Amino acid sequence: MSELRQNIITRDWVIIAPERAKRPHEYRLENQRKITLPAYRPDCPFCLGNEESTGEETLRRSDDRSWRVRAVLNKYSALSPTGERVRHSQGSHRSISGVGAHEVIIEHPRHNVTTALLDIPDVANIIHVYRQRYLHFKNDPRVEAIIIFKNHGRGAGTSLEHPHSQLAATPVVPSQFRSRIADAVRYFDDCGDCVFCETLRDELVSGDRLIFENTHFVAFIPYAALSPFHIWIFPRRHSSCFEQITEPEILGLAEALQVVLAKLYYGLDNPDYNYTIRSLPSKQEQTPYFHWYIAVIPRLTQTAGFEMGSGMYINASQPEESAEYLRSITPPLITT
Amino acid sequence: MSELRQNIITRDWVIIAPERAKRPHEYRLENQRKITLPAYRPDCPFCLGNEESTGEETLRRSDDRSWRVRAVLNKYSALSPTGERVRHSQGSHRSISGVGAHEVIIEHPRHNVTTALLDIPDVANIIHVYRQRYLHFKNDPRVEAIIIFKNHGRGAGTSLEHPHSQLAATPVVPSQFRSRIADAVRYFDDCGDCVFCETLRDELVSGDRLIFENTHFVAFIPYAALSPFHIWIFPRRHSSCFEQITEPEILGLAEALQVVLAKLYYGLDNPDYNYTIRSLPSKQEQTPYFHWYIAVIPRLTQTAGFEMGSGMYINASQPEESAEYLRSITPPLITT
Repeated sequence: MSELRQNIITRDWVIIAPERAKRPHEYRLENQRKITLPAYRPDCPFCLGNEESTGEETLRRSDDRSWRVRAVLNKYSALSPTGERVRHSQGSHRSISGVGAHEVIIEHPRHNVTTALLDIPDVANIIHVYRQRYLHFKNDPRVEAIIIFKNHGRGAGTSLEHPHSQLAATPVVPSQFRSRIADAVRYFDDCGDCVFCETLRDELVSGDRLIFENTHFVAFIPYAALSPFHIWIFPRRHSSCFEQITEPEILGLAEALQVVLAKLYYGLDNPDYNYTIRSLPSKQEQTPYFHWYIAVIPRLTQTAGFEMGSGMYINASQPEESAEYLRSITPPLITT
Repeated sequence: MSELRQNIITRDWVIIAPERAKRPHEYRLENQRKITLPAYRPDCPFCLGNEESTGEETLRRSDDRSWRVRAVLNKYSALSPTGERVRHSQGSHRSISGVGAHEVIIEHPRHNVTTALLDIPDVANIIHVYRQRYLHFKNDPRVEAIIIFKNHGRGAGTSLEHPHSQLAATPVVPSQFRSRIADAVRYFDDCGDCVFCETLRDELVSGDRLIFENTHFVAFIPYAALSPFHIWIFPRRHSSCFEQITEPEILGLAEALQVVLAKLYYGLDNPDYNYTIRSLPSKQEQTPYFHWYIAVIPRLTQTAGFEMGSGMYINASQPEESAEYLRSITPPLITT
């Protein structure tokens, strides 16, 4: 018989359905992909040497070789960096002008790399740029929330091969943020504790779903993971706001993110995935109840009518078994 | 500049991004599909004559020719029809045994039909079976919510060609139901009205997003549609519970559903889609604040990191323009 599990952070219920289960390595077989990309493509706007083809550059992080990471305006921006935030309301129709920001973060000068294959300092460069651009938009009075995310592979919503992530700054707080915060506040009021800290303690005690840990970060598959190999990376230190990450924590996160993505790369043959940073809305400061983290979501299955109709998910993989599989994957050492 | 719109029923904000927009017919060109299926496949468990290949039959609707619609147990069920509902709680981990139901509704004896090509009595037969199975599970004390949905095409999560839909009866109320109900209650308390009735009135007055209407039902693209050609079909009569649909309303819904799906079929060349019936949890009765409806969601685009990170959506189509396009599509008459 299957089992329903509840994620106490998101309050989502998920059906863990072993009758439909595949063994972890079967996700790999379905996903068999060998990709050989060139280091440079003349038609890629993100490659070193093609800087003229991108939108306006807003930040560059360089070393003595060249630039390492660039933030640029998205040429197909969903939100405009100029203009006023104007609200309209007429009957049941509410709207806001589409101001804010939509930037692309080009993660590396080379075309044929991916976070799983980068060394820690390179990944740390990317996180540095995330933090700098986050801090920049936090001060924009028109911006209420900042979403940093990555789409890797066609199944994750991108057709661009060159490694990149994105930042969107929206003129409104998404309702999903508000409901998660309300739940976290209620937990704090009921139990006097941060529901994220509590979850982290439980995961460390059990160990069944852990994937990787270092001094600053812990990566695990949530007890009620919505989809196969869904992974959360939590800072050990209680902090509500991603942008208050410290320098040593940036290195710790770079290692955790690189190791997790390398385990997926080698264990599941470079699956498509998204990741996103979940933090408080940009206008809020530290609180005792909210704890930022990164969610990594491999795109191995598809949502269908059941998920749309209920908001619940059916996950045919057992989180403990998936975590055990990823723990067993030892990526080769990166040499640069 | 793009525009953010809020759906006052779901409270979702969506970015309507005309800079990225395609003209309505371009969705058709991307989706160009000519499918020729046989009327019967020996290896299809749902075809007339292969009844032995399905799970146990729970309901059959016949006429003097043969069966017209069958409900059967899903052979790959995510929830078990037998067993007790047992809750466990340990630390931050809550679980419930996976009892409930997961049935397949085989919509027609022939392999090569689809709702868009059926006549009204055939579609009404399907809705009759939905209602009968809904009423059956409503009385099961282990069941808290019943989700009826359809996955049409690979992009919507099914690999089975034979026309079918599904019913899942879950032992818990999905948290998404609770939050939508809470919002509807708040609207009722604030405004003294049903937020769905209010939305329907606004859509009928404006007319810009209407697609089809008859005596009992109105189909329209919501003002803040999350994705291109997302369609809601509302009953005109205020009713919280799908299962209280009357006989004349079943015929009205059959017509509305058939016309909407035929407009998609001819206007966008048989796109993949899901639909689902949104109703109160099965243990609740009529209320003044909730109004059941059907959501039809063509799968023309893909969600990516932005949607996962924010719960908001970017929709590159203009709802008014999409509705105008669908109004202009006149499907050929069905002759049987």
